Amino acid sequence: MTRFGARPEPLRELVHEAASEALRDAEVESREIDAVYFASALAGITDEQAGVLPAVLLRTVGIAGRPMLRIENACASGSTALAEAFWAVRNGRYRTVLVVGAEKMTQAGSAQAAKAMAGSTDAEFEGRVGLLAPAFFAMVARRHMQEHGTTREQMAKVAVKNHANGAKNPKAHIQREVTLEQVLGSAPVSDPLQLLDCCPVSDGAAAVVVTAGPGGRRPPLVVAGSGVSTAAFSSNPSMTSFSATRLAANLAYSMAELTARDVRWAEVHDCFTIAELLHYEDLQFCDPGAAGRLIEEGATSLGGRLPVNPSGGLKSRGHPLGATGVAQVVEALGQLRGEAFGRQVADPSVALVHTIGGIVRGEGAVAAVHILTEAA
Amino acid sequence: MTRFGARPEPLRELVHEAASEALRDAEVESREIDAVYFASALAGITDEQAGVLPAVLLRTVGIAGRPMLRIENACASGSTALAEAFWAVRNGRYRTVLVVGAEKMTQAGSAQAAKAMAGSTDAEFEGRVGLLAPAFFAMVARRHMQEHGTTREQMAKVAVKNHANGAKNPKAHIQREVTLEQVLGSAPVSDPLQLLDCCPVSDGAAAVVVTAGPGGRRPPLVVAGSGVSTAAFSSNPSMTSFSATRLAANLAYSMAELTARDVRWAEVHDCFTIAELLHYEDLQFCDPGAAGRLIEEGATSLGGRLPVNPSGGLKSRGHPLGATGVAQVVEALGQLRGEAFGRQVADPSVALVHTIGGIVRGEGAVAAVHILTEAA
Repeated sequence: MTRFGARPEPLRELVHEAASEALRDAEVESREIDAVYFASALAGITDEQAGVLPAVLLRTVGIAGRPMLRIENACASGSTALAEAFWAVRNGRYRTVLVVGAEKMTQAGSAQAAKAMAGSTDAEFEGRVGLLAPAFFAMVARRHMQEHGTTREQMAKVAVKNHANGAKNPKAHIQREVTLEQVLGSAPVSDPLQLLDCCPVSDGAAAVVVTAGPGGRRPPLVVAGSGVSTAAFSSNPSMTSFSATRLAANLAYSMAELTARDVRWAEVHDCFTIAELLHYEDLQFCDPGAAGRLIEEGATSLGGRLPVNPSGGLKSRGHPLGATGVAQVVEALGQLRGEAFGRQVADPSVALVHTIGGIVRGEGAVAAVHILTEAA
Repeated sequence: MTRFGARPEPLRELVHEAASEALRDAEVESREIDAVYFASALAGITDEQAGVLPAVLLRTVGIAGRPMLRIENACASGSTALAEAFWAVRNGRYRTVLVVGAEKMTQAGSAQAAKAMAGSTDAEFEGRVGLLAPAFFAMVARRHMQEHGTTREQMAKVAVKNHANGAKNPKAHIQREVTLEQVLGSAPVSDPLQLLDCCPVSDGAAAVVVTAGPGGRRPPLVVAGSGVSTAAFSSNPSMTSFSATRLAANLAYSMAELTARDVRWAEVHDCFTIAELLHYEDLQFCDPGAAGRLIEEGATSLGGRLPVNPSGGLKSRGHPLGATGVAQVVEALGQLRGEAFGRQVADPSVALVHTIGGIVRGEGAVAAVHILTEAA
């Protein structure tokens, strides 16, 4: 993956960097790639490029004459591309697939960016009335506080934890620790959320090679479970639970024949601090309502029993939409190989990675969960 | 499928109409749908909606809690979604998948539309210098004329043929015959192409149900071969042949264990009249350079030995980008059932459907070919 952050290079150069590194690491030649799944949520808007993006972007790494397509599923685009590639390989359609996620966001004008982000809601309803992500997650936060006694400080601790991790990640957008006081003193965004509760706007690309065969000399990881779903809107049990995450997690756990108790660490979609707490509950890391206590106890810190977002998460590593889900897998691979340096988790053997995308009718619209394990 | 044309309804209503009709025709309940593959090339731009589109659009037909994603592959988006859905069903990942293609184009402002279409080229190179589709296909036409003696009249005959067919298609955008004189007298666009050499800008949606099981009471069709590819740019043998089409066709023919000689009729990507001639050659309906004679002889007319674009094609039925590849399958189903009324082909048993997408480095960037046959 490229370093995430404000990157002046055009999208194609970020893609070239990430794709070349993935091919090199996997010891795969470009002619061995049977297909390319490219993930980008906003490329049609921010890069004025809707269509033929993979073909345009990947000529530089020598891939042509192969099926390529773009997958778009809002902020879960990268994870969805991973799922599609995984199933195509698992079922024997292809032997080796390149998955690339990329996004350029920082150079979009503010009107363009607002339009793009409004598109991740139901643009004709939520989008038009201004119910964009910060406003939506602010309401979720208030509800969680009221229903479960979650505190402002508990939310802020998610930011403190993830920045502490991201400060040790040389690919992170914001490699800087923040204190509880700094989070609670940061500019208001949408009450109770403040600036340091929100993930940054980032550029970046990430790539992985998915193959059925033996990997190169370096240890690969195994996709043990894969689940993608959309919300079952009418059956959403509460405003503080996303049914899409629960559905996707159940699919992934069931396929991997594992439960939440088996997960040793995770990367989850902390677009806002409250979101990470919500996901603890929906991914069954704790009981509904208990997420505030989980962060409070330090269970999800680097040295805790279930480290969450050792990469820094969306909050500190950054969130170039299409790249995010793929970058989580890159982090998992680094952790598995014991190469995560200052942010290494104690037991990297069973990882869960999770993204959500969009907001429709008061909940996350899509979610993707993968369980990644070391090779047997 | 909806009628194609200038449709004032929002995208969601077009999608609702097409998806409902497909479910009804297939006698499938919305709860039986295991996944949704949604195709749209420009939705991120023209509808200000990048992300969660299927989830937003398909709640109205009662589909939720299922994996949904958007596939984008320029003008081949619909065919690419079909291919992804087909392989997911064939390999047992899903039993029943809904494929929906949709596009709203007529209400885009001209600047917005130009930006969107420029995105189907390499926007940083071809797009910026104005090498959009009409200019590109004009150069291809000139080259075909020079290399093979193809005449202006032969190109115009593609328009005459396809409008004659489309005039008999109640779902077509332009249900009107045109004469050779009208084509040759129409406004210049990019020499030698004139207005009536170009497909219109259309709105519309189309949907099909792909299933591994027995269909409903109405005869289904069988996907016998599926091929999607991108251009092998550096090896493109000539300016008048698209390697992506040749690669995709070879994949589809080989999988179906058929050759071009077995194809009884076809729907091909006639975005411009010259394009249809080019495709005759790349799909091996005739030798390179012989396409002009093929149209001249009437071989591809409704009563000919290999009718092409009985629906009217992009030229007359219309070309709402994401919907086009799906609408070709709807036409194939109607033909197979003998319900194509005044445009019925004599032998609908083996159909080839073909789309291309984008222009990169002087050729079509992506192509998709499917062979559709009657059930055994």
